[in-house]
Amino acid sequence: MFDKVLVANRGAVAARVLRALKQLGIRTVAVYSEADRDLPYLAWADETRAIGPADARASYLNQDALLAVLAETRADGLHPGYGFLAENAGFARRVAAQGAGFIGPGADWIEAMGHKTRARDLMAARGMPLGPSSGLLDDDDEASLAAARRIGYPVLVKPAGGGGGIGMLAAHDDAQLLAAVAQARSLSQRSFGCADLYLERLVERPRHIEFQVLADRHGNVRHLYERECSVQRRHQKVVEEASAPGLPRAALDAAADRVTRILADMRYDVIGTVETLYDGAGGFNFLEMNTRLQVEHAVTEAVTGIDLVQAQVRLAWGERLDAVLPSSIGLNGHAIEARIYAEDPLRFLPSPGPLARLEWPSGPGIRVETGYAQGSRVTPYYDPMIAKLIVHAEDRPRALAALEEALRATVVEGVKTNIPFVLALLRNERFVNADIDTGLAAEVVRDMKTAAAANAA
Amino acid sequence: MFDKVLVANRGAVAARVLRALKQLGIRTVAVYSEADRDLPYLAWADETRAIGPADARASYLNQDALLAVLAETRADGLHPGYGFLAENAGFARRVAAQGAGFIGPGADWIEAMGHKTRARDLMAARGMPLGPSSGLLDDDDEASLAAARRIGYPVLVKPAGGGGGIGMLAAHDDAQLLAAVAQARSLSQRSFGCADLYLERLVERPRHIEFQVLADRHGNVRHLYERECSVQRRHQKVVEEASAPGLPRAALDAAADRVTRILADMRYDVIGTVETLYDGAGGFNFLEMNTRLQVEHAVTEAVTGIDLVQAQVRLAWGERLDAVLPSSIGLNGHAIEARIYAEDPLRFLPSPGPLARLEWPSGPGIRVETGYAQGSRVTPYYDPMIAKLIVHAEDRPRALAALEEALRATVVEGVKTNIPFVLALLRNERFVNADIDTGLAAEVVRDMKTAAAANAA
Repeated sequence: MFDKVLVANRGAVAARVLRALKQLGIRTVAVYSEADRDLPYLAWADETRAIGPADARASYLNQDALLAVLAETRADGLHPGYGFLAENAGFARRVAAQGAGFIGPGADWIEAMGHKTRARDLMAARGMPLGPSSGLLDDDDEASLAAARRIGYPVLVKPAGGGGGIGMLAAHDDAQLLAAVAQARSLSQRSFGCADLYLERLVERPRHIEFQVLADRHGNVRHLYERECSVQRRHQKVVEEASAPGLPRAALDAAADRVTRILADMRYDVIGTVETLYDGAGGFNFLEMNTRLQVEHAVTEAVTGIDLVQAQVRLAWGERLDAVLPSSIGLNGHAIEARIYAEDPLRFLPSPGPLARLEWPSGPGIRVETGYAQGSRVTPYYDPMIAKLIVHAEDRPRALAALEEALRATVVEGVKTNIPFVLALLRNERFVNADIDTGLAAEVVRDMKTAAAANAA
Repeated sequence: MFDKVLVANRGAVAARVLRALKQLGIRTVAVYSEADRDLPYLAWADETRAIGPADARASYLNQDALLAVLAETRADGLHPGYGFLAENAGFARRVAAQGAGFIGPGADWIEAMGHKTRARDLMAARGMPLGPSSGLLDDDDEASLAAARRIGYPVLVKPAGGGGGIGMLAAHDDAQLLAAVAQARSLSQRSFGCADLYLERLVERPRHIEFQVLADRHGNVRHLYERECSVQRRHQKVVEEASAPGLPRAALDAAADRVTRILADMRYDVIGTVETLYDGAGGFNFLEMNTRLQVEHAVTEAVTGIDLVQAQVRLAWGERLDAVLPSSIGLNGHAIEARIYAEDPLRFLPSPGPLARLEWPSGPGIRVETGYAQGSRVTPYYDPMIAKLIVHAEDRPRALAALEEALRATVVEGVKTNIPFVLALLRNERFVNADIDTGLAAEVVRDMKTAAAANAA
């Protein structure tokens, strides 16, 4: 097993990974930027190293600084967390070249799945359904227009080089398409260093369902069921659930089995998530694949009882899947996660500041994952997520009630948070009835504004 | 529902109750002694009040001070936690006389069950099995000797006025008996203000199994299965599990049903635990009843999904059991709790001091309940428990493995802890095989000492 692992990340995921490594008896190295030097989880690591100024490009994205720490501490593994360099194939190769294990899928998988049209081709060739889409767009207006007309408007222009909603633009007609393509190329080049684009049919209110897989380096792949992740603001998930409510179990299981078969056929390894859009008719169309741990992994942990981070570390080390997982994995109850962001709950704009007061709920089935403590400061340099609050109960109605109670018992002072948004979501009739799609968050915000206006009047 | 509740306790249980109240939307008042003024959970309460010096008799046991806070803050409920005044019928009556709700069973039940021979008589009259025992001993040597001979040596001399192992002494012959009776009378008078004693047949290595019940104030009682609590040092539990491993489910369920029927017949109310000794042949003999929340309630919460503290509050308010609990309650997986004490792991002597470093594990199924934060001080004034670490997994082997991992990831610096003892227990073959009794802790300590001596040689 790894002797010492460098955790090349910050915040809640660094805290989560440090603890999992400790539970496995592995020594740990934590890194921090100047802005993060006082975060509480740093004290949990056996060694800590400063890696640069607050700006992530100079610290958490600074490959040379991280590789220098790796060499200096003689760590034999590196866990990238999520975000930052987690899906950077070049970095994974540099880690490996230094003789350390990159705790994620092989660099070739990161590269293959990181380029979205290549990933689509790989998956489609093995039988994964896709929605109507183009291949890579030539840099030629006529070709783009022809591709859009073939798919049928509205379409979504998407960068092939990266995800996260960056450079993703809708077009309802030819004029919008050409403008969107030009803008997306520019954004994509700047964000991902790659101007490749493709088109997808725009599903107006899609439902985002993703499938969690674990795999070893010996050709074995298993799924850990699915997550419902349609509640999003600014293309980022806010509330996630396992299992997916209101969808036929047989269709979900069939889709999970198909994903598993396809990835086993490729000999995919270690950990990954296949994101799909549910088409409302039993089909789960491939969206993209994330070659890393997901932020929302804890809901899967709750319903399966599997520690995904420990499993990831062991699989990256080379253990066999049947040694890491029990022979059968069931779905136990229902879990829901709310990401607590330091942000304006109506406008979704970051609200950095000191966490003057910070209190978390506790009780059966409640789990809090955070990188902060009371007195910490949410700085403007990184993602403003303060914590993930996960509840696990016997069924969905009880889980929703438990989350509402838990949020009521949560105290965050010093910054604005999105807790009012999550509370409004929990009282939204469509959400309660599991009638969820990616348009729901906007509806909830509209209702909140209407209510606020009525109160003011 | 209660508008505002005073939490008349300290430490982990005060923290636990404050959060449950917050989750129910109830305002809270916390109290603290001079020694506890910096404990972190005090910040979670809506109001806090100092109640006196460190010595518990002047603060947490100071009825006048607590009742003054109750009046001054106009709280309409009081949660006593466990320990201190939780089983003081006089205090419960004074709370009620002030017009506030005492969040526990009615004072008459506290009184009836608090006197051990009266409780035994009450339960036995309704069909609860007892081991061989005497009634109240007359203050007369000949009568004591006759009672002991009738039961058969060895016997245990026990105070009728209170529990916790205080004044409990074994006797193997007449001479030991008379000495034990004299000593126990004196201890019992000083500790409980009551010199009443009785005798029980001494079971040499008993297995302690207890049954959790919830009840409303309308005559309805239900059980939430049992807990195994045989791992004890100085007559205090250290490690508890739900459900009880290695015992026939049918016998456990029959015993739980009998307890439920008996308590329903009495119209017992709110919350309680019936402690029994398993006789090895399918019988569960009544030991005593605790008329309060137990320290180890979280293992029951894990396997049933029921929040016992919230249920207790709602039942004390007068809600009906069928409104508080789901219609069916299953047993889901296995849960185990380790109490982390600031104490010498071999001699079980308190080790107060500053918690210079304090780190807790995290992950699926892990729960930590504590009243301390890094930088807090464990003072010599109260029970030296730092935290309860609870893990919940699919089955017992996985729960034991998860607890071991979690303990490995736990860091407590500045005081000695019993973590080495719990780790040794987890590797003890008898414990792993669920061959547990109250003599096991001593065996584990003996093995630890042998190993330490071998290492030193």
